[in-house]
Order: sequence, then structure tokens, then C-alpha cells
Amino acid sequence: MNTPFRFEVLQVDGTARLGRLTTAHGPVETPAFMPVGTQGTVKGLTPEQLVHAGASIILGNTYHLALRPGDTLIADLGGLHRFMNWHGPILTDSGGFQVYSLAPSRTIDDQGVVFRSHIDGARVELTPERAVAIQENLGSDIAMCLDECPPFGTAREYLRQAVQRTIRWAERCRAAHRRSDQALFAIVQGGTDLDLRQECSEALVRLDFPGYALGGFSVGETPQQMAAALEVCASFLPADKPRYLMGVGRPSDILRAVAAGIDMFDCVLPTRNGRNAQAFTWSGTVRLRNAVHRRDPGPLESDCPCYTCRHFSRAYLHHLFMADEMLGPTLVSLHNVSMYCRLMTEIRRAISAGRFAAFQAACLARWETWL
Amino acid sequence: MNTPFRFEVLQVDGTARLGRLTTAHGPVETPAFMPVGTQGTVKGLTPEQLVHAGASIILGNTYHLALRPGDTLIADLGGLHRFMNWHGPILTDSGGFQVYSLAPSRTIDDQGVVFRSHIDGARVELTPERAVAIQENLGSDIAMCLDECPPFGTAREYLRQAVQRTIRWAERCRAAHRRSDQALFAIVQGGTDLDLRQECSEALVRLDFPGYALGGFSVGETPQQMAAALEVCASFLPADKPRYLMGVGRPSDILRAVAAGIDMFDCVLPTRNGRNAQAFTWSGTVRLRNAVHRRDPGPLESDCPCYTCRHFSRAYLHHLFMADEMLGPTLVSLHNVSMYCRLMTEIRRAISAGRFAAFQAACLARWETWL
Repeated sequence: MNTPFRFEVLQVDGTARLGRLTTAHGPVETPAFMPVGTQGTVKGLTPEQLVHAGASIILGNTYHLALRPGDTLIADLGGLHRFMNWHGPILTDSGGFQVYSLAPSRTIDDQGVVFRSHIDGARVELTPERAVAIQENLGSDIAMCLDECPPFGTAREYLRQAVQRTIRWAERCRAAHRRSDQALFAIVQGGTDLDLRQECSEALVRLDFPGYALGGFSVGETPQQMAAALEVCASFLPADKPRYLMGVGRPSDILRAVAAGIDMFDCVLPTRNGRNAQAFTWSGTVRLRNAVHRRDPGPLESDCPCYTCRHFSRAYLHHLFMADEMLGPTLVSLHNVSMYCRLMTEIRRAISAGRFAAFQAACLARWETWL
Repeated sequence: MNTPFRFEVLQVDGTARLGRLTTAHGPVETPAFMPVGTQGTVKGLTPEQLVHAGASIILGNTYHLALRPGDTLIADLGGLHRFMNWHGPILTDSGGFQVYSLAPSRTIDDQGVVFRSHIDGARVELTPERAVAIQENLGSDIAMCLDECPPFGTAREYLRQAVQRTIRWAERCRAAHRRSDQALFAIVQGGTDLDLRQECSEALVRLDFPGYALGGFSVGETPQQMAAALEVCASFLPADKPRYLMGVGRPSDILRAVAAGIDMFDCVLPTRNGRNAQAFTWSGTVRLRNAVHRRDPGPLESDCPCYTCRHFSRAYLHHLFMADEMLGPTLVSLHNVSMYCRLMTEIRRAISAGRFAAFQAACLARWETWL
């Protein structure tokens, strides 16, 4: 069986790209946003609601799923798609980032990472081979190589070591990878050091992966630092392969990254902020607990086609949050995911029409202070 | 404008009745179950999901809604149906029961009840006239008279006073009631004292309400005590008016009450227990946190047509609860409401076919120990 994975660039507009991923579970128009389904569920939303919101691909977290319920259990039950009843494409991360950010008492050496589970304290080892095996058990359409992601501000000497380790681990992941219905992407590290980014990119490109991610962004640098670095980093990557900026970000970050030639994004903001009563709209963020919404009969966003905006007032959403009702987080998460997906649709439309720069400028002029 | 409210008994089978309520927001086939939407939302479910689960009428709580967001605010926004986007019939309770069970430092006299809000400690007065005004503001299809509901085991002398007060308050509610698109039901009290129940029923029937509720059940008596009392109590009420048993109950309670001639029910069990990982099925209750479900690929209930059972395994539901994911409470609440609505459908079908006694016996033989 040949791998079904394909990527085509359909059109370019400056350095922004309109493209299409083809995966074992269907196509994804790019630039694309992936809602985050950390524990086998995009928090608070049914798969039906996700489809309604316009999501075409979602992300699952290897770290969380391997610890609970376990990747072999998910494999025994037919894989992650079936387990969570999501029939579109899924990308899984490698688990590395969560080990560094969530797990207690982790130690890293060339072999891999050893850490304690944040759930029960059990000792767990994550190696490049194990990261691939877990993701093959989950059965995602796109898997990620295990990488080392040092914190923002790490000294250059350690950054260099982390880059070398990330390259060696990518080789091992590639050697271990078996599933022909799953594409394995490599992750470029190097922090804000563009020489290291270039070195890492060139080494990974020589290994010829079907896609490349940029890791270690949005971990402390300013949006301006990130945007400047992204343009350079994207130029180190082959034009005919998809580029995925991990864990980013706000709508304004996404616009700048698309301008730099990025094709894929994931971020917890639409759901995490949604659960905390913050809505993203085209006119700005809206904090629904604010008393100004108490009697407001209008929807969150008047021209939004989502279920929440078509059926509920700001006054009702305000009430749900004040009364601590579960439906509030669900309805605002639904709106936010829908808003992000509409943003991507508008981005693709603008690239297609050759007016992305104007679209971006118009959005950023409106959003700069808040999104 | 004439009141659109009507009730027809379409068929009887023993003392069980098949009927139809006609309300300003559409018909309700009886016996009917009303999911509880305490704070303007049936917890965790969208109105769309409620319709899918088969709910035809829901209940709203006057006490909660009057305190937050306030009944005048809801009226200003077009009423409760529009506020919560539920376009079917709504019954609101009078608030009395919640004042007695939730509010701190309440004092009752003939004028009404004075209590402290459980939200902000504000002093609130609930009189019969105010209970009616609140429900008229909410715009429910069926409103309830304010009653006094003494705790189970109250001495007969106080029970008698409470019954007399309930009758006087029903008169005042009737006199205060204005909305012609809303039916006002009276509530029969009297605890387990059947003489008092009869006295209360006769007095209320003389006032000629379009429907009658039995209050003060399921507050401490055994299911057997309740079933025996219900049969007698139902006989005190006119055959051509709907009978509503408030706050009841488990599926087995509902079956016994239907046998006694009850037409309407509400209960928090399907949603409250659903949030706590307990599912109701035709083969028994299922505790989804139990480790036995960890690897179970089967649905909660194999022949259940609900969204949850059609799309998710017990293993997945178990995982959602172990991982403390919001989707678990939502999916199991959806199943439970759906199961209750299917129970009512089967009850109506059995009455229609003249085989309710056999249906009830078969269910109770299977359920006695647990439902």
C-alpha cells in the first residue's frame, strides 16, 4: 500500500500559500487550523459540533493519550479516530513538548526522556522509537518526530546540543516508522538562533520528510520576534512540503505566519479561552462575564453562522457563565473554533484572489491591540 | 384571546391514561417526562440535543431564574423560550419547593415566604402574587401555584395548616393570574395523610384549575408508600384534567405512578446522575467509572438510538470520566434523557395497546432492585 499522504501547493500570493493535504482520512485545505483534542476530545464539543464549526483536521496529544487511557488500549479499540468518533484527519504530536512542560522530574539524554506521569507518578520512558510506536497505535494521519524543545532563553551552547539531538532523534523516528497510512513530520528546533534553525532544517530536509514543523515558537518571544524569525525559517524548508507552526496561536500570529509561508496551525486558545468566557470575534475579544452583556439581546457576532450566534444572545451566554453552567463553555468554545475556522477560510480566499497582503493588513489594523 | 391550553384523554388502560396536552408552544403526548432546566439550561445539553433526545416539554425553576438572571430581564429579552432557545412547551414550578429546600433563613406566614438568596444573601419575598408574576414574566406554558411543602414526617397539625395555606395561596394565585397563553396548575399537598390530601384536592377542584399537581411526594417515604398514596390521591382529581407528580422520579416510580393515573413527571435524575457517570439503561444502571468498562468496545446500550450510543463505546465514556472531560457528563446526560423519553414512548405505546399492566410488570420484574 502506498502512502495516501500528499501535499500540493495550489497557489502562492507573496510567500503565503494556498494548498491541499491529502490524508488517509480525507483532504485538508491549507492554511488550516487544528483544534486541540488533548485527551481524545476537543474539550466540551461533540465531533458533530466540531464538524459544524468547520474543523477539517484536529490534533491529539500523544503524551496524554499514552498515559491515559493508553495507546495500546486505543489500538485495541480500533484507533483514535474510532475511539473518539472523529472521522476526519488527525495529527498527533510527539509528546515531547508536554513532557517538558507538564511532567515532573524529567531527565533527558540521548536515549530519550524519562519522567514521572503527572497522573499517578509512574516512571515513563519516551524514546524516539516509543514516540513513533505510540502514534502508530493511535493511528493518526500525521505523526510527529520526538524532539527536544528547550525553554525560551536557553543558552546557545545547550540550544545547539538540543538541535543535534533533535536531528538524531528524527533519524531514529524515521527508521522506526512503519505505517504507510501515516505521514511522519520532522520538527525544526533552534530557538531564536537562525543559524541553528538553518542547520537543523538542512539536516532534516536531507532526511526527506513529507512535512516539517517549526517547534519552540510562541514560548516567550514577542510576536514581532516570532514573525521575523518565521519568515527566515520558512525559507529553509522545501516549497513543496507542508509547514506546520506548532502551538500557535492568536489570530494575528496566524496571519503573520501565513504571510511567512506557514500552512498548518494548532492552538488551545479557542477552547481554553472559550471555557473561561472569552470569545474571539472579528471585532475583538469579548469577555462574557462582563456586566455590560447582562441585558444584551444581540448575538456574540451578528454575521457569524455558528450555532451559538444563530441561537443565543450575549445576555444568555453571560447568564450561563454567571450561573456556572456547563453550556456556557460549550457554546463559546463552539463559537471560537468556528471563528478560527472562518478565519482560515477567509485567509484561503484572500490568497486565492491574490489579495492576502491587503487582507492581512486590514485584519491587523483592526486587531493589533488585542488578537 | 382564548387560552390555547387543552387536555384530552385519548385512551385509558386500567387507571393509566394516554393523553395529549395542547399548549401555546405545541402539543405534548402524555404520560410525559420533563427534563429539568433549572437555570435556563438543561445542564450540559443544547436545545438541539434535547430535541434529539426526544424531549417534548421541559421544566424551568422559578426560584433560580427569579434570583438570576431575574424574571424581568428574561421578560425584556422576550421570555424564557427565546432566552434559552427552547421552542417547545415549558412548565415552570412556583419556586416554593426550592425556597424550602435551598434558601437560608426562610420565614413563612400567610402573606408569603421571606428568605435570603443563596447567591448573594439578599432578602427576597415570595408571595402567591409574586410567584404568578414571575412565571408570567418567564412566559412558561404551564405555571404552578405557590404552595407550602412541609418536610416528610411533619406533624399532622402543621400539615393541616400547610394544606389550608396552600388552598388560600392557590385562590390568590388564581386571582392574580392574567396570561391567557399560560395555564395555571394547582398543587395538592397533605403529605401521606390521605384525609388531608382529599380535603386539599376537593378545595382546589372547586376552584377549577386546568391541571393539578401532586406535591410533597418523593421526600422521604418509601416507593411502596408513595405508590399506594398516589392511587388514592389521583382518584380525588377530575378525570379530564392533567395530573402532574412533581419531582418524581426513578423509572420504576414513574411506571407505578402512571399506573395510578399520573400524566406528567419531572426529575433531575437523568442529568444529575449522568453528570456523575451513572447511566440508565433498560438492563439496569451502569456506573461508567467502574474499571469493568475500561476496554469495553460496546455502546452503553446496544439498541439505543441516541447520539451517545450510536457513536461512542463504554471504554470511551469511561475514559472521559477518568480524564475529567466535560464531554462525559454531556454524553451520558444525553443518553439518560433519551432513555427516559423512550421509556415514556413505550409507556404510551403500552397504554395504547391496552397492555400497560403487563408492560409495567415486565419492567418492574427486571428493574425492582435498582431503578
